[in-house]
Amino acid sequence: MTTREECLSLDAEDPLASLRDRFELPAGKIYLDGNSLGVLPKATPARVAEVVRLEWGEHLIESWNTASWIELPQRVGDKIARLVGAAPGEMVAADSTSVNLFKVLSAAMTIAREDAPGKRCILSERGNFPTDLYIAEALARERGFELVLVGAAEDIGHRLAQGNVAVLMLTQVDFKSGRLHDMAAVSRAARAAGTLALWDLAHSAGALPVNLDRDGADFAVGCGYKYLNGGPGAPAFVWVHPRHAERFWQPLAGWMGHAAPFAFDPAYRPAPGIARYLCGTPALLSLAALECGVDTVLAAEPLGGMAALRAKSLALTDLFIALVQERCGSHGLECITPSEHALRGSQVSFARAEGSYAIVQALIARGVVGDFRAPDVMRFGFTPLYLRFADVWDAVEHLRDVLDSGQWRDPRFHRQAAVT
Amino acid sequence: MTTREECLSLDAEDPLASLRDRFELPAGKIYLDGNSLGVLPKATPARVAEVVRLEWGEHLIESWNTASWIELPQRVGDKIARLVGAAPGEMVAADSTSVNLFKVLSAAMTIAREDAPGKRCILSERGNFPTDLYIAEALARERGFELVLVGAAEDIGHRLAQGNVAVLMLTQVDFKSGRLHDMAAVSRAARAAGTLALWDLAHSAGALPVNLDRDGADFAVGCGYKYLNGGPGAPAFVWVHPRHAERFWQPLAGWMGHAAPFAFDPAYRPAPGIARYLCGTPALLSLAALECGVDTVLAAEPLGGMAALRAKSLALTDLFIALVQERCGSHGLECITPSEHALRGSQVSFARAEGSYAIVQALIARGVVGDFRAPDVMRFGFTPLYLRFADVWDAVEHLRDVLDSGQWRDPRFHRQAAVT
Repeated sequence: MTTREECLSLDAEDPLASLRDRFELPAGKIYLDGNSLGVLPKATPARVAEVVRLEWGEHLIESWNTASWIELPQRVGDKIARLVGAAPGEMVAADSTSVNLFKVLSAAMTIAREDAPGKRCILSERGNFPTDLYIAEALARERGFELVLVGAAEDIGHRLAQGNVAVLMLTQVDFKSGRLHDMAAVSRAARAAGTLALWDLAHSAGALPVNLDRDGADFAVGCGYKYLNGGPGAPAFVWVHPRHAERFWQPLAGWMGHAAPFAFDPAYRPAPGIARYLCGTPALLSLAALECGVDTVLAAEPLGGMAALRAKSLALTDLFIALVQERCGSHGLECITPSEHALRGSQVSFARAEGSYAIVQALIARGVVGDFRAPDVMRFGFTPLYLRFADVWDAVEHLRDVLDSGQWRDPRFHRQAAVT
Repeated sequence: MTTREECLSLDAEDPLASLRDRFELPAGKIYLDGNSLGVLPKATPARVAEVVRLEWGEHLIESWNTASWIELPQRVGDKIARLVGAAPGEMVAADSTSVNLFKVLSAAMTIAREDAPGKRCILSERGNFPTDLYIAEALARERGFELVLVGAAEDIGHRLAQGNVAVLMLTQVDFKSGRLHDMAAVSRAARAAGTLALWDLAHSAGALPVNLDRDGADFAVGCGYKYLNGGPGAPAFVWVHPRHAERFWQPLAGWMGHAAPFAFDPAYRPAPGIARYLCGTPALLSLAALECGVDTVLAAEPLGGMAALRAKSLALTDLFIALVQERCGSHGLECITPSEHALRGSQVSFARAEGSYAIVQALIARGVVGDFRAPDVMRFGFTPLYLRFADVWDAVEHLRDVLDSGQWRDPRFHRQAAVT
């Protein structure tokens, strides 16, 4: 049996422990929801205040030049690129994940239509994050493609092999179960089938090592406000492999993606490379906050970078799974996150026949913040930048107590909020 | 001849003078570029800090409920609606103007394809803001429509009368000349021709009275960072007349526009009304700042609202035009902004055969901030919320001096910056 003292020892030996100091951790909380909204970095409030008071308030439009606002989408994109195996100049931070997905999926469909006109399917998983499916559904309907959804990750290879899939669109880590796809293997299977591989990195960027270029991805998007700690609704990012980036316009052909935005040319002339995936004026306040968040992940580079973060993440989730089994084993919690490391992201999810929503609420009331995903999933995210092994112990103790005591049956934990 | 004393008297009598106190005006500057980026409201830094430190930093994901983040796009949309003659529930603040234009133009094209399948043209002006033209060009290409551009506003009626225009897409106030369209008359002509009228209010929302519903608009978008003072890259807004709002999905069918975003339903079911024009997670920091900006315009409501702001705006631009004529008349400045009130927005633009860029730079060096628009336009925006009549006098004195002295010929004013 594990003990709390062993957890404290792990914390004492943790080479990444110092990174925790970079965050304003909420008092009295064990925050296991960094996969939904990352914690506030200490550097962010001052940086946002600087953008507001100095760059906007004092220098106003001059800041497009003097504060390099015009380069910020690229600068932040270059930083995120380092975390996901992309080269400088290949990525920009902009818009939302949904909007970026629309850009790359429509570009992928256009390319497929030209290179492989017989292929008219977009393949994804039924359990993919809904916004991805909605965007794909809308594009498929508009362009006469068929959106095909498989129920299980294991069916992807078989479906690809049928040969009519234009674009494979997957979220690398499933938002509900935390299951991780092998990007290299899946992209290889896609390539072999003449299919373009589009990856949503919402739950992988900043959470585990990603190597877009080496692992054969064609397109990628991802989220700024989860493991990148960019703040609520932070801009997302978009990446296109250089072999595709200049082939087509994406249809959101806004002025920031023009080759010369301030020439005010009435005809669209796309910027070289990934810059053509910019559209309108970037939300500067949110983008500046995103940069601070990305910097917290880059701060791990001298300490071993994403590999070290991944090792700690797996140790945290291993511990959580083991402790729940040890201490809450009799309460009917089914771990729906794979136990195999190669198949696990940075979260652990449990399903339960009854009470999942209320159990999460009872935990939140005690300061242990996870979240609920319909119909029956309790989701716990583990951000190795700021979580300790002792936090895992304490969280499981609360979970055990909520279950042993039956506290979750209290009606106040069953009231549904607007956002769950 | 006008005197500075007369300008000071106008300021002393100005019923809107107190609104200036709501802004952090940059020291030593006369800011005539609120049509590019509005000035920082005094309330904004504290509000943004509250969102960062309290709502994000302390309450984290709970703020979706406790701070009503989930309702913010609608709440800000409702406030903007009051400024442009739309009803509560008809508008949301989200994304960029470019992205919103894509949403409404594609919806308009879909509706036109159903109601008037013979009409395959999108009509606009060659001088429309480029991002609008780029988006229209991309959509026209994708869907087999033709984008037709007229060179002069006077040609619109004639071109509409040809009968094959599906959508008329105009920016109400021209970004370069400041020319104002008569929304009621133009929308009426469009309606008579069986054409949908789509308006970009980038330079009119917060600058002059707009009445979308009364004046027959079908769709509208607009910008949050100009006269609404929302901050750099503030979210934009989107409005669809209720008669169209529920007819179709817009293709950016993201999860925030779903009828039940947190049900995580794999099939898209659009939200009722304008909420289906939301897409991804909103950039909360930028959206909170936008609300503060909109509040500065709403603060004029007890003082006469948009009608009073419009009266002052016209008085300011009248004065500016008259003073430039009186005091700089010999320097070859051509006022390209209409002198007729009904045709003028809230800016004044001059063209000059030589040196427009350098003259603007020389003025900026003196603290008089206007901007340059290629190839030869000096642009001066007048925000009645914070500009004084004496500012107009002083700005013209600087302009006179830059011209009389030939200071603008100094080579340092000819160096081009990345953003002009």
